[in-house]
Amino acid sequence: MSHSSKLLQEAVDAFSLLPGVGKKSALRMAMHLINKDKNEMLNAFVQPLGRLIEHIRFCKTCHHLADGEICSICRDRGNRSTTICVVESIRDVMAIEETGQYNGLYHVLGGVISPLDGISADQLNIDSLLLRTQESDISEVILAISPTIEGDTTIYYISKKLSAHGIKVSLLARGISFGGELEYADELTLGRSIITRTEYKVNQL
Amino acid sequence: MSHSSKLLQEAVDAFSLLPGVGKKSALRMAMHLINKDKNEMLNAFVQPLGRLIEHIRFCKTCHHLADGEICSICRDRGNRSTTICVVESIRDVMAIEETGQYNGLYHVLGGVISPLDGISADQLNIDSLLLRTQESDISEVILAISPTIEGDTTIYYISKKLSAHGIKVSLLARGISFGGELEYADELTLGRSIITRTEYKVNQL
Repeated sequence: MSHSSKLLQEAVDAFSLLPGVGKKSALRMAMHLINKDKNEMLNAFVQPLGRLIEHIRFCKTCHHLADGEICSICRDRGNRSTTICVVESIRDVMAIEETGQYNGLYHVLGGVISPLDGISADQLNIDSLLLRTQESDISEVILAISPTIEGDTTIYYISKKLSAHGIKVSLLARGISFGGELEYADELTLGRSIITRTEYKVNQL
Repeated sequence: MSHSSKLLQEAVDAFSLLPGVGKKSALRMAMHLINKDKNEMLNAFVQPLGRLIEHIRFCKTCHHLADGEICSICRDRGNRSTTICVVESIRDVMAIEETGQYNGLYHVLGGVISPLDGISADQLNIDSLLLRTQESDISEVILAISPTIEGDTTIYYISKKLSAHGIKVSLLARGISFGGELEYADELTLGRSIITRTEYKVNQL
């Protein structure tokens, strides 16, 4: 679809750059911008996006998103927490924060070791993790990495390095999802969850 | 969901203003902006949107989107076409242009007469339509307005005004959609399409 207005066409092309947005949605979004108050849309829509792109930085300690040198999590919890949760990506930090069950520090690797994709250990933020565990008082590192082949390789690599320094390493529990139906669970998960079954105590919860 | 980065939070809020975009999609879009090259995203994404909001105008002749005083359709076809297609909205102009079956002028009403929504005839671009038909050489006005109660009222109102000036008024053909199954057509459409049936000639197409 080509539009008679060049300004509109360029805006539609811009929206089409976003993930999951086709030409039709892009047009709907562009028309939305036109139909609203001009100054309101500039202030509430365009400017925040420009600011994000121009000013966002990555925390120099944990590589999470930061508005300044250090992210708000490192700033708020840096002095009182001795646990680091190692994740693949920034979105994983958000997902874990969303649970409200963890109050420690993070370390964003920026991916997992994947020789097939040409990603080796030195391209990830692993050296800075080892440095952190040596320089500050860290008692435990939780490796919250996806249980894939690449993820398991990364877990093995990092835990070997950390164990050499005598730091406790833990993994996320694996098993059947809450609310999941047994018949739809994959064989590997189901099989392992029988082997690593936990004792059930009345009054446990 | 609240984010540790204020910049990110503001960008997510901005994306959430768009139609059909929830908090999760908004986050995905904001993360997309961060992950791409900074200058590329400013030039290809933010700036076109800002330009659209700041500089888009409405054609002073037909009220369609325009980059200047007059839209490209009025500019290109103004001298040679004597047909005006009257539509409710800018999106209708786009839809008809998309068919490639019409080469005339347009006139965007900006809605239909709807007393329940407080929209009366003088709030629509009807006066400017009547003026156009008197001032320039217009032979036919096509009322391409939705076949709803409000649409039919608007069609009646405009055609009465235009007939007084001796201008030919036509409507879009109504009937069964191409590819539509008869059993799923509504009664009114099916009933009318029997009454207004057209003669079938072999070699017609």
